[in-house]
Amino acid sequence: MSFTAVELIGIKRDGGALPADAIEWLIDAYTKGTVPDYQMAAMAMAILLNGMNGEELAAWTSAMLDSGEVLDFSGIPAAKVDKHSTGGVGDKISIPLAPLVAACGVAIPMISGRSLAHTGGTLDKLESIPGFTTGLDSERFASILNEHGLVLAGQSETMAPADRKLYALRDATGTVPSIPLISSSIMSKKLAEGLDGLLLDVKTGSGASIKVLEESRALARTMVGIGTRHGVETVALITTMDQPLGHEVGNANEIRESVDVLRGQGPDDVTELTMAFGEVMLDLARVEGGRERLQKAIDSGDALQKLIDVTIAQGGDPRVLEDTSLLAVAQYEAVLEAPTDGFVTTCDALIIGMAATRLGAGRTSKKDVIDPGVGITVHAKVGDAVSAGDPLATVRYSDEERWEDRREGLASAWVIGPGPEAPRPLILEKVTADSVDL
Amino acid sequence: MSFTAVELIGIKRDGGALPADAIEWLIDAYTKGTVPDYQMAAMAMAILLNGMNGEELAAWTSAMLDSGEVLDFSGIPAAKVDKHSTGGVGDKISIPLAPLVAACGVAIPMISGRSLAHTGGTLDKLESIPGFTTGLDSERFASILNEHGLVLAGQSETMAPADRKLYALRDATGTVPSIPLISSSIMSKKLAEGLDGLLLDVKTGSGASIKVLEESRALARTMVGIGTRHGVETVALITTMDQPLGHEVGNANEIRESVDVLRGQGPDDVTELTMAFGEVMLDLARVEGGRERLQKAIDSGDALQKLIDVTIAQGGDPRVLEDTSLLAVAQYEAVLEAPTDGFVTTCDALIIGMAATRLGAGRTSKKDVIDPGVGITVHAKVGDAVSAGDPLATVRYSDEERWEDRREGLASAWVIGPGPEAPRPLILEKVTADSVDL
Repeated sequence: MSFTAVELIGIKRDGGALPADAIEWLIDAYTKGTVPDYQMAAMAMAILLNGMNGEELAAWTSAMLDSGEVLDFSGIPAAKVDKHSTGGVGDKISIPLAPLVAACGVAIPMISGRSLAHTGGTLDKLESIPGFTTGLDSERFASILNEHGLVLAGQSETMAPADRKLYALRDATGTVPSIPLISSSIMSKKLAEGLDGLLLDVKTGSGASIKVLEESRALARTMVGIGTRHGVETVALITTMDQPLGHEVGNANEIRESVDVLRGQGPDDVTELTMAFGEVMLDLARVEGGRERLQKAIDSGDALQKLIDVTIAQGGDPRVLEDTSLLAVAQYEAVLEAPTDGFVTTCDALIIGMAATRLGAGRTSKKDVIDPGVGITVHAKVGDAVSAGDPLATVRYSDEERWEDRREGLASAWVIGPGPEAPRPLILEKVTADSVDL
Repeated sequence: MSFTAVELIGIKRDGGALPADAIEWLIDAYTKGTVPDYQMAAMAMAILLNGMNGEELAAWTSAMLDSGEVLDFSGIPAAKVDKHSTGGVGDKISIPLAPLVAACGVAIPMISGRSLAHTGGTLDKLESIPGFTTGLDSERFASILNEHGLVLAGQSETMAPADRKLYALRDATGTVPSIPLISSSIMSKKLAEGLDGLLLDVKTGSGASIKVLEESRALARTMVGIGTRHGVETVALITTMDQPLGHEVGNANEIRESVDVLRGQGPDDVTELTMAFGEVMLDLARVEGGRERLQKAIDSGDALQKLIDVTIAQGGDPRVLEDTSLLAVAQYEAVLEAPTDGFVTTCDALIIGMAATRLGAGRTSKKDVIDPGVGITVHAKVGDAVSAGDPLATVRYSDEERWEDRREGLASAWVIGPGPEAPRPLILEKVTADSVDL
């Protein structure tokens, strides 16, 4: 079939649906460069404003998936399951979760991302382990997965190149906040991993990329629909991202907290999410035992050992995991104190995440270099009682000027009220194929 | 003020209004190339789908106007008035109208366009006069206008360059059919002519770029609003474009028909529109006398003489105007005959215009070269009684294969029914500043 980009843009502009073969042609031509950026930019805006139906989304995702390599782990007998988070502040869940579930016999070919805006990135956190390499070719990726049942890497150049090109364009053309475009972007990468099951952690709240529950639900349903249509059992949990997860926001300090979880000494919220996600992943892999089995893998030390083994396999120095005091810590320390007695009613994830980024724990542009020892330790969270002078947070930083610039902004993350207020539940909703119209 | 394109696209994407200084920055940065095509394409689609309010439109038009040279004819004492048509089939009105009104003492700095898709272009028609030059620099443009009170030229490189760049982008990104973008494009060029008054001929119907009356009305109101806000008295007439104007569709043959009008021997519809438009232009110029004065200019030969004078001034051979049989005629002739007795109920402007274009009278791409002697003479129009075998049209063509390809298509332009049917009135509505919310 022969199409022209102008004709297809016109269909979407006028509220019509694009035929599957037209979508296939468009994504292929865009990847090859015969459809230029300016035509795809107009198309992306038309999609953002006029939407896509289920068939279009499935075709769009398939076309992006087919633009590159699709991994094939059919040679590995264990069920292959991954988890993807839409991104939050202090969201280190993947780091304890992946080795924990792998220690229970599930194969986890985990492909993660980097820090973006106010949210941290699993790859950046892992790289605060000296020597840890996240850029693996597909051969090494497969061999580590095969040996350890776990591999923790970044997206390779050969996976979904159409998505990489389109994502950069969307970033530059104000076309990021589109549920069909976000969904197809995430799912085209995840479906390239050759999975049997996929858990999606769709964040909602101040520190999430999508702040309104209704929109998070739409995103969750759309992605579960895409995964199911592609024959991958997909479950989404919609989880709260009003305040940071755990106490640590940064990179090396998040590794420390992750190791605490694997030792059974992590903060309640991170531990609870890790266990709840682990249960879903065992279910997806048809592995029996549930939470008890997960607890055993922690108590026996198997889960932590799995992280140590994979760290060694990926070139990292395991000593920092055995003694986390060896992890990087930035030179300077400051303590933010409660200005008054009362109860914490807000501990804003967006403000804290943005402060950590500006201090060097994240990126505001692709060129920024991460300072792994920079981080914020949050002492007082929603519902906690504080007295004037109590520490709200301890900040580790390397650049005094940057800290002076952010101090006041960071302090505004906490609101202290007269009475206790309970935070929202951690897990708000579960979305499965049954709850989605296909 | 400092802006980023992504931020401004986001405002328009979310249905907001762009501040005037942001629009100024954007158009300037786009003209200079610091805002790339892909960002402008996303913006154009967001504008197409979310619209612009009156303030935005005025600012957008001003910014495009200010991207280039604005002509200044304040040294010429006569009132400066122009007419612009949104384009139709057989629409040669400018050619008799401009010299007629100029002969009554109004200065007409007329800047016209070229053939596009199924519609002809005034410049292409004028260039079927041997030697007639429409590419004039601003000095020569001003000196001809000064001497003759009339000049007939094309847009120079220095006028509204932002519009030229944006128009090419819209053409390639499916963002042409947007009333704010069409309006600001037309008006930014017209306002650069340094006018006192402007008549807009907004076509509606099959052969017009906008086919639905309601949309033509919205376009007319929007343009009258822009002109008025810019201090140029602007009137729009919404006119019917269901069937071709006059009998001639082409280039040299339309010059012949224009000369007939200036001799008082033109077809009724072309003569009527020419006189009605002339009256409005005299009013805009505050020149007394109305239709009687126009009639005198025809009867005295002054109007035709004005066309001859300006033809000589622009390098053209005036003999073809004195004896129109000297104008180009294509080599071959074919006659389309009525297949049955009855009355013409449809004589479709779009089909006839497209056939003329494909035969060589117009352009489907910028590279196409016009064949000035190619044309269609329409004998039977809506309401006319015909007998089987009567000529519906005579076609002049140079390429036999092209004609064989189009013969059947062209014949489908005529529908013959059992009873007479009256065409819609030529002029449907008048839109003035009073009828527009500012």
